[in-house]
Amino acid sequence: MEVISNYTRTKVLMDALPYLQKYNDKIVVVKYGGNAMTNEALKEAVMSDIVLLGAVGIKVVLVHGGGPEINTMLDRVGIESKFVNGLRYTDADTMEVVQMVLAGKVNKQLVQNIQTHGGKALGLCGIDGEMIVAEKLDGESDLGYVGEIKRVSTRPIIDALNSGFVPVISTVATSEQGDTYNINADTAAARIASCLRAENLILMTDIAGLLEDKNDESTLIKQVNVSEVAYLKKKGIISGGMIPKIDCCVEAVRRGVKKTSIIDGRVPHSILIELLSSEGVGTQFI
Amino acid sequence: MEVISNYTRTKVLMDALPYLQKYNDKIVVVKYGGNAMTNEALKEAVMSDIVLLGAVGIKVVLVHGGGPEINTMLDRVGIESKFVNGLRYTDADTMEVVQMVLAGKVNKQLVQNIQTHGGKALGLCGIDGEMIVAEKLDGESDLGYVGEIKRVSTRPIIDALNSGFVPVISTVATSEQGDTYNINADTAAARIASCLRAENLILMTDIAGLLEDKNDESTLIKQVNVSEVAYLKKKGIISGGMIPKIDCCVEAVRRGVKKTSIIDGRVPHSILIELLSSEGVGTQFI
Amino acid sequence: MEVISNYTRTKVLMDALPYLQKYNDKIVVVKYGGNAMTNEALKEAVMSDIVLLGAVGIKVVLVHGGGPEINTMLDRVGIESKFVNGLRYTDADTMEVVQMVLAGKVNKQLVQNIQTHGGKALGLCGIDGEMIVAEKLDGESDLGYVGEIKRVSTRPIIDALNSGFVPVISTVATSEQGDTYNINADTAAARIASCLRAENLILMTDIAGLLEDKNDESTLIKQVNVSEVAYLKKKGIISGGMIPKIDCCVEAVRRGVKKTSIIDGRVPHSILIELLSSEGVGTQFI
Amino acid sequence: MEVISNYTRTKVLMDALPYLQKYNDKIVVVKYGGNAMTNEALKEAVMSDIVLLGAVGIKVVLVHGGGPEINTMLDRVGIESKFVNGLRYTDADTMEVVQMVLAGKVNKQLVQNIQTHGGKALGLCGIDGEMIVAEKLDGESDLGYVGEIKRVSTRPIIDALNSGFVPVISTVATSEQGDTYNINADTAAARIASCLRAENLILMTDIAGLLEDKNDESTLIKQVNVSEVAYLKKKGIISGGMIPKIDCCVEAVRRGVKKTSIIDGRVPHSILIELLSSEGVGTQFI
Amino acid sequence: MEVISNYTRTKVLMDALPYLQKYNDKIVVVKYGGNAMTNEALKEAVMSDIVLLGAVGIKVVLVHGGGPEINTMLDRVGIESKFVNGLRYTDADTMEVVQMVLAGKVNKQLVQNIQTHGGKALGLCGIDGEMIVAEKLDGESDLGYVGEIKRVSTRPIIDALNSGFVPVISTVATSEQGDTYNINADTAAARIASCLRAENLILMTDIAGLLEDKNDESTLIKQVNVSEVAYLKKKGIISGGMIPKIDCCVEAVRRGVKKTSIIDGRVPHSILIELLSSEGVGTQFI
Amino acid sequence: MEVISNYTRTKVLMDALPYLQKYNDKIVVVKYGGNAMTNEALKEAVMSDIVLLGAVGIKVVLVHGGGPEINTMLDRVGIESKFVNGLRYTDADTMEVVQMVLAGKVNKQLVQNIQTHGGKALGLCGIDGEMIVAEKLDGESDLGYVGEIKRVSTRPIIDALNSGFVPVISTVATSEQGDTYNINADTAAARIASCLRAENLILMTDIAGLLEDKNDESTLIKQVNVSEVAYLKKKGIISGGMIPKIDCCVEAVRRGVKKTSIIDGRVPHSILIELLSSEGVGTQFI
Repeated sequence: MEVISNYTRTKVLMDALPYLQKYNDKIVVVKYGGNAMTNEALKEAVMSDIVLLGAVGIKVVLVHGGGPEINTMLDRVGIESKFVNGLRYTDADTMEVVQMVLAGKVNKQLVQNIQTHGGKALGLCGIDGEMIVAEKLDGESDLGYVGEIKRVSTRPIIDALNSGFVPVISTVATSEQGDTYNINADTAAARIASCLRAENLILMTDIAGLLEDKNDESTLIKQVNVSEVAYLKKKGIISGGMIPKIDCCVEAVRRGVKKTSIIDGRVPHSILIELLSSEGVGTQFI
Repeated sequence: MEVISNYTRTKVLMDALPYLQKYNDKIVVVKYGGNAMTNEALKEAVMSDIVLLGAVGIKVVLVHGGGPEINTMLDRVGIESKFVNGLRYTDADTMEVVQMVLAGKVNKQLVQNIQTHGGKALGLCGIDGEMIVAEKLDGESDLGYVGEIKRVSTRPIIDALNSGFVPVISTVATSEQGDTYNINADTAAARIASCLRAENLILMTDIAGLLEDKNDESTLIKQVNVSEVAYLKKKGIISGGMIPKIDCCVEAVRRGVKKTSIIDGRVPHSILIELLSSEGVGTQFI
Repeated sequence: MEVISNYTRTKVLMDALPYLQKYNDKIVVVKYGGNAMTNEALKEAVMSDIVLLGAVGIKVVLVHGGGPEINTMLDRVGIESKFVNGLRYTDADTMEVVQMVLAGKVNKQLVQNIQTHGGKALGLCGIDGEMIVAEKLDGESDLGYVGEIKRVSTRPIIDALNSGFVPVISTVATSEQGDTYNINADTAAARIASCLRAENLILMTDIAGLLEDKNDESTLIKQVNVSEVAYLKKKGIISGGMIPKIDCCVEAVRRGVKKTSIIDGRVPHSILIELLSSEGVGTQFI
Repeated sequence: MEVISNYTRTKVLMDALPYLQKYNDKIVVVKYGGNAMTNEALKEAVMSDIVLLGAVGIKVVLVHGGGPEINTMLDRVGIESKFVNGLRYTDADTMEVVQMVLAGKVNKQLVQNIQTHGGKALGLCGIDGEMIVAEKLDGESDLGYVGEIKRVSTRPIIDALNSGFVPVISTVATSEQGDTYNINADTAAARIASCLRAENLILMTDIAGLLEDKNDESTLIKQVNVSEVAYLKKKGIISGGMIPKIDCCVEAVRRGVKKTSIIDGRVPHSILIELLSSEGVGTQFI
Repeated sequence: MEVISNYTRTKVLMDALPYLQKYNDKIVVVKYGGNAMTNEALKEAVMSDIVLLGAVGIKVVLVHGGGPEINTMLDRVGIESKFVNGLRYTDADTMEVVQMVLAGKVNKQLVQNIQTHGGKALGLCGIDGEMIVAEKLDGESDLGYVGEIKRVSTRPIIDALNSGFVPVISTVATSEQGDTYNINADTAAARIASCLRAENLILMTDIAGLLEDKNDESTLIKQVNVSEVAYLKKKGIISGGMIPKIDCCVEAVRRGVKKTSIIDGRVPHSILIELLSSEGVGTQFI
Repeated sequence: MEVISNYTRTKVLMDALPYLQKYNDKIVVVKYGGNAMTNEALKEAVMSDIVLLGAVGIKVVLVHGGGPEINTMLDRVGIESKFVNGLRYTDADTMEVVQMVLAGKVNKQLVQNIQTHGGKALGLCGIDGEMIVAEKLDGESDLGYVGEIKRVSTRPIIDALNSGFVPVISTVATSEQGDTYNINADTAAARIASCLRAENLILMTDIAGLLEDKNDESTLIKQVNVSEVAYLKKKGIISGGMIPKIDCCVEAVRRGVKKTSIIDGRVPHSILIELLSSEGVGTQFI
């Protein structure tokens, strides 16, 4: 085991000081998903990052997706996925399983993980306190119970933060008629971040960030002004699956979030590096 | 449809006045289960009762069990129940399903039901904010992940009540090591009620109440002083499945709950009748 | 005595739910006068209505006139009423008696009545805390100490409401020079309601409401938009003694009161029926 | 007109400093009655004293009797006073007049006087908010509606003080059954002072204070320890009408009032001299 | 020793009433300097004035210069004063002594003086909490560490006032780089007064006020509207050392201070006379 | 320059986590003196440590001595030190210089240093708000203005902490008569720590800690229970100048401080290492 000298220890802490001052008592929304959710060691690192951020006075809100657990459970109960124009269709039975897995399993496990690392957490979903009210997504094809957000009520989140809890949020929403809708977690995180006037929105992904040449990680673009996004799309640098993620970033910044970051969730402690060092581990949108 | 005269309307409201004054701004914990949970009409009545109690200034906390939904899901995923000395054994796989169904399905449905009736609700389980910390039940036989309560933290419940939400609570608990335990819902409700210094604890059952002659509902005992319970057990009037329920009532009263009631959940609006009329619909323990 | 079934009881309460939700924690100003003040049974009903509204979380402010008590006392002390162009002239001696009867007798009796019905009340007049500052009414003829309101200070009312008291208000006012003026109770109630941003102003009268044909109660107009009032005056439907009352309603709505109602004080519990049922018992102005 | 030098002005203010510091933000209860109430110049002085005390941060509570106004009104309405063993009997008709005059006339005039001197005041009686709950006085002879205090609720007084009002209190009380009782104003002031943990209770009288020789004002006793009162009664120095007044003082000190003073209300500004100078104008009980 | 009659005492207090009402709970900033600081009797009078103002509910902020103490200490440590175009040059060594004497000696003595007179005080300088941030004065000649104010943070002052302390402020400031600058005390007092939205700024001087004829104190101008200042300068009535002082007054009034006064610090208790009597002892700018 | 890997960075932060959680929102009193005060690099390290502790939510109170600055100034003004039985005698002239240097120079420099490192600080001494009231030390020989603490008022410290300032405290005190006394800084820090119910008191010294063999730093005793101190004195392990320091530690622990530490101020960032790592850099007393 490496021995870290007191010199190094204090140097690291001192290097973190300007960031500690910047984020003190500020809200940071983290969208948690991908490898960081399935790889056990990465997951442990994320949990301890979140607890540490809380311990130094940063108010973290954790928004999570469901990862492979949803598919596993759909398999176990024998629900087959239907597809419409290549997109998964969420029927009532599927929605029921999605809700159970997200709000009943993944959410509570995350709460428990934060708590075994010494933090305090409270698990909520968009149904609670009508936190996320959605309506049927009005897209080209009918995707069933896939919703888009009509309004967000931050009261349950604020209450949790004020009592010192990390709010852990599953992105299932309620409609005004009392139906449940599944909401894309990136979109929900972006919307929640802007309603909370968050200092930062962090989207954890399985890529290094936005690359000039998508096959060369050394071409990482460290910072993008949201006004440049249209041009980057036109040039094809922003393309494919990156488009909706980056649209979330742009939307969040436009609605008042100071900064959004797409970070590499495959790097251990990437949240900590992103927030508390001069390095950063992905692409920032400002 | 019956026409109710204004005379009758005002008479009913006036009759409710002393109870409205008594319970105003007080906490009432309702353990919800049994027929009232499976029969759709009864369920609707319970939901509207709870919303009405909130609208007249009573702070309701809803603690729920899982009813038949747990068994249905265990069946669907092919988990067979094991029994130890006639008691169900909760292994890790079963516990996972119990948690998902309680905290992810039943809990969120109840939140949604309250909200479609015009109320505001927030769904929580014992894991959230370490609200219920349990340890393995130390009984005669090993029942797996069946727990007994070590301590209760009411902060998340108080926060919810202060923000005007009905806290809806699933009785899965966390251990200090981060394992999940299933907790008997009556016991959890009693413990929560005493920690909240509740005015009243209401246990919804599928019986008329405590009967002198268990075959004759006309022999209903309307009120029991907790000091008489030992004698009633000795005489065999309290026996069988009633024993643990009534033990919860006694425990709650001894720890500071003003009154506990075992009410007949098969009667529509039994909560309302119990709280807001001179009638009562079961047996009160004081 | 009629036996009311539990079914009916719960039905009545459920029917009241939307109104309980609507008025919860809102301010309702009631102008109390006429038959409802002199008939003992009606008075009892009003008092219990007010206590019940308080018990379900509605903030009631009671503004009262003096009814026949003023004339009785003027007779007893041998003051004869003078009239100017058919209107009563209030000289200094009369004003002294009016003040004594309103603020010292009627007001305190109402406070006591509310309290014997289980409520909490606090009696105030416009002199207290310079709540109502008036100046001499600038009308066609000199009416002596009849005043018009210059400004209202709601602080004493707000304090009373915050401490859970029903403020009971006599409409005698002070001038800036320290003289006392008599204020029309309808006008004062309307002005207080608008300063309090009340949800509702209720004027109790001895008529059924606004009638298309004033001899036929079946022609009751249930709702009037304040923009229609000019037309209704022109048509003669609003005429005579109704004019100043309805002008108060219009004024209150224009200054921010959500709704004002002229209700039939001769109907027992008319306040309750007006506020907590779909029926209503008079004419609403919105 | 005398010209006062700046030297004298500052000397007076400086002499007042220790008393201003002592009473700052403290509660002083003043029982107002006698000559100071009937003599217009004395009355003006009392009103301005009270406003000044408020302006320097002392919380004054004014408790008043009715003076000759009650008799005048009883005469006007033709009620003859009955006497029982030399004590006035208060029948229901008399009580009604007493209440009207005290709570409707004298009380509101005092409020108005304080306000025309630039202060803020709120008039209340013992009925308001069940501030003074009384029962029939259990004495040797039946005196009708003369009551003794069962309990005092200070909430309305505290609310008024917190909003910067001088509470002006008429000593009519309510019984638990809703009857009105007349309460001796000295007794009520003493009881209110002890419930408020007042710093000082001042009883205004028409005598110089307690005299060793009742015919010689130069024999004024400036300070009495309440433990000496029994001896002073035995010696006859405390006798006659002084006994109940001094019993009030003793009772108040025993129940936690720091100091009570019997002051000479015939001296202009006697309250100010008593509170803000080293002189004092009567007898202090500690 | 003069005997002051109770009549005179109450007259003085009554004369002070309108001023007590006007300044109650308001902030008054006093710039303390000149004779009032060196003459022991005058100093005592100022200290007791400040304590008295606090005792009657006025929030005093004391801003002080250093008087002759700075020169004495410069002499003791052998620092000779340099002059640039007739103005004293403050080099680093001088600044160090100025800071020590102001913040370490004069400031703490004033705190102690207020406290021995029965008040509560807290000594601060412009460095504390970055209360006064300055930069090098950009004048005709380089005066070394003489600064001009860039911004004022009132938080430490507000905290002290809220805890009942008289803030005593030395006018040394910090630059953003952490250098110390000396600030003219009149200027600092004016700026602090405007940032605190003070009711009054009082500058203590060694002159009678603004005189029409500077050799005749009977030509004192009692009140000047700030719009007249330009004209008075042109006429030569405002000239010499008066110019910067009066510029401070004008600036303070323009930035929101209600009134500023140049008072004669040679008159004992001039602060008290200025604030609590109709006389005034200097010239007011409004 | 050493490059620190992200791995090391996150490891250091993670190692600090349990300490961050332990001290979050807790008060730590640091007695600052010795080499750490005179060596510029050590001083910089202390300042940045304090700012970092504030940034992670620890409430630091800095109590300081004067170091060599006092002697330098005494020399400059030509005051010779007198000694009584080998102890320095503090006459009035010396006390004046001590106060000026501590409260006017050292204190304000520390405030400025903290602020240039990005923190917020407020400089106070024991005179301010009568924070430290002392009386003449009652020892064997008369030491002049050397005091012992009679009482401590924490209000100014609490106010500063609540506003986010680091309170920086010079240990000059006031007597009740308004004289100034010099207080030993270790003693003052210990007393302030116990009055604040601090989590930790840290005394910075110029030694490695308590050593079994005072010539061998490898014999450092890491932790001592205060009950063992008597025995360690008897054995001579605690001796000489260590005795009063360790007595302060014992006293502080006995009066409620959770832990006190004597740390080696010659080690850079020793405060940070002591508080945020498992290492520690001296001897802890519990």
